[in-house]
Amino acid sequence: MLTTGSQQGIDLCGKVFINPGDNVWVENPTYLAAIQIYKVYNACFNTVITDKDGMDIDALKQGAAENGGKLVYTVPTFQNPTGKSLSLERRKAIIECLEDNDMILVEDDPYSDLRYEGEVLPPIKSFDTSGRVVYLGSFSKTIAPGLRTGYIVANEEILAKMMVGKQTVDLHSNALSQVLIYEYLKSETYDAHLESIKLLYKNKRDKMLNLMQAHFPDCAKWEKPQGGMFIWVEFPQGVSMTEFLSVAMDEKIAFIPGASFYALGGTDNTMRLNFSNSTEADMEKGIKKLGELLKKLFNK
Amino acid sequence: MLTTGSQQGIDLCGKVFINPGDNVWVENPTYLAAIQIYKVYNACFNTVITDKDGMDIDALKQGAAENGGKLVYTVPTFQNPTGKSLSLERRKAIIECLEDNDMILVEDDPYSDLRYEGEVLPPIKSFDTSGRVVYLGSFSKTIAPGLRTGYIVANEEILAKMMVGKQTVDLHSNALSQVLIYEYLKSETYDAHLESIKLLYKNKRDKMLNLMQAHFPDCAKWEKPQGGMFIWVEFPQGVSMTEFLSVAMDEKIAFIPGASFYALGGTDNTMRLNFSNSTEADMEKGIKKLGELLKKLFNK
Repeated sequence: MLTTGSQQGIDLCGKVFINPGDNVWVENPTYLAAIQIYKVYNACFNTVITDKDGMDIDALKQGAAENGGKLVYTVPTFQNPTGKSLSLERRKAIIECLEDNDMILVEDDPYSDLRYEGEVLPPIKSFDTSGRVVYLGSFSKTIAPGLRTGYIVANEEILAKMMVGKQTVDLHSNALSQVLIYEYLKSETYDAHLESIKLLYKNKRDKMLNLMQAHFPDCAKWEKPQGGMFIWVEFPQGVSMTEFLSVAMDEKIAFIPGASFYALGGTDNTMRLNFSNSTEADMEKGIKKLGELLKKLFNK
Repeated sequence: MLTTGSQQGIDLCGKVFINPGDNVWVENPTYLAAIQIYKVYNACFNTVITDKDGMDIDALKQGAAENGGKLVYTVPTFQNPTGKSLSLERRKAIIECLEDNDMILVEDDPYSDLRYEGEVLPPIKSFDTSGRVVYLGSFSKTIAPGLRTGYIVANEEILAKMMVGKQTVDLHSNALSQVLIYEYLKSETYDAHLESIKLLYKNKRDKMLNLMQAHFPDCAKWEKPQGGMFIWVEFPQGVSMTEFLSVAMDEKIAFIPGASFYALGGTDNTMRLNFSNSTEADMEKGIKKLGELLKKLFNK
């Protein structure tokens, strides 16, 4: 089913599946809009720890067995905000966990086409034999966010309910955007376009990582994302990146403090940097200055 | 604020104003999507009788004084489904009723640009001095429904809340559609286009009314709408237009049974006909056949 951006897909999952008080499982940290959306439906949030291979499925299994759960929300590939991806093994393992605990998985996947290196990971949906996975796709990161077009892949029973929900929200998706995207995807131009933005973003990622290496203080930790748009930076406990943002903003540098990506709060020593949007010149100026400010913050 | 169709405006009013169990006042009958939308927010529906001048404001006053109310929803001009318009006097009177009972009015106005005769009525919003009216406009009936672009006029405090609600639903409205509509409205072409569709729809309305006069049974009652897209037909009590629809569908004729426009149900002797969409040839064939079937139904 076509949607008004894949954001609408997140919302329709809430409309269809979540009753007030239902347990929703999310990565810690997770995409902040998912937190905002499921709060509207009065979801009760539960968080799952993540490591370099994404969501810890054993932790999810244990948590769901103890507390129950209606829905699991994940961005399994080049996650927003951390840039991490769920390993192949865990993609298979999560299906069993859904079945054992009678849960639905929302697989939010706007970034997987933006892979700059490493092996392609199949969507979790490809291992779904019992119709428990709702896959959300997007053209916002590959074609244009302004066209507000995404899509849902799910079984017919789920789509029928979502169709009713969508009708109350906006009747139908933008017809012109659908035609434009359809024609563009059919054309040979699209593949070349995708390759060109991948190369562009890869170079920007590398540029930003090099600049961070040169200018950030030693206490800042990050990993190189294999795709997507974000670099996630962790700092020592006790510092507030929310407060530091206003220091950076005074120098006209913006980042997203990590705090808002934690469904249950409590962590403020992280930041999300976006590398796909800045010009190389702005990036050079910005990361250098940000490094200076950070070194001052950490007295180094 | 620009919205993804004015339908999104109806939904955002629900998101911002309605808590479960809140009393919502609607015309009887009213736009069926408003019923579906506010049901999602667990509104408690209350209906106001209407006559040829639209919603009976004295009845609304009395009802709101007795039962209270959070929100009033109305399509004051060329209402969907009845085609009736709220009189000038009542447009002024409703403001006082809102103030006396601390209610918000949703003025859903997608049809007022499609006036074929009679004096232009100012929007209720133009009499609103206390910020209680949320005006919803649309380009779907005048430019193109496929562009999914509407707008909300309300005070800043209300718009700020709606902005947060909109961000969770679809982040922002389609950028291409906004540019296209902006350029089209600025061009001289738009006025000529509006005049041409008004003439087209007026002729179709007259054509359909003439055909109904010629072919419908005497027990069918309707009024000539001064604008919009719909003719509302009432039949004697006791007949089910919902059942009759399947008879008509066998002959490939579709109409909307009126039952779904009544928030509290209980009425099935009405139908909504649309005159803007059919070709003249289809209309001739369809209304003639519909008349035959109706005469058979009423044994005349």
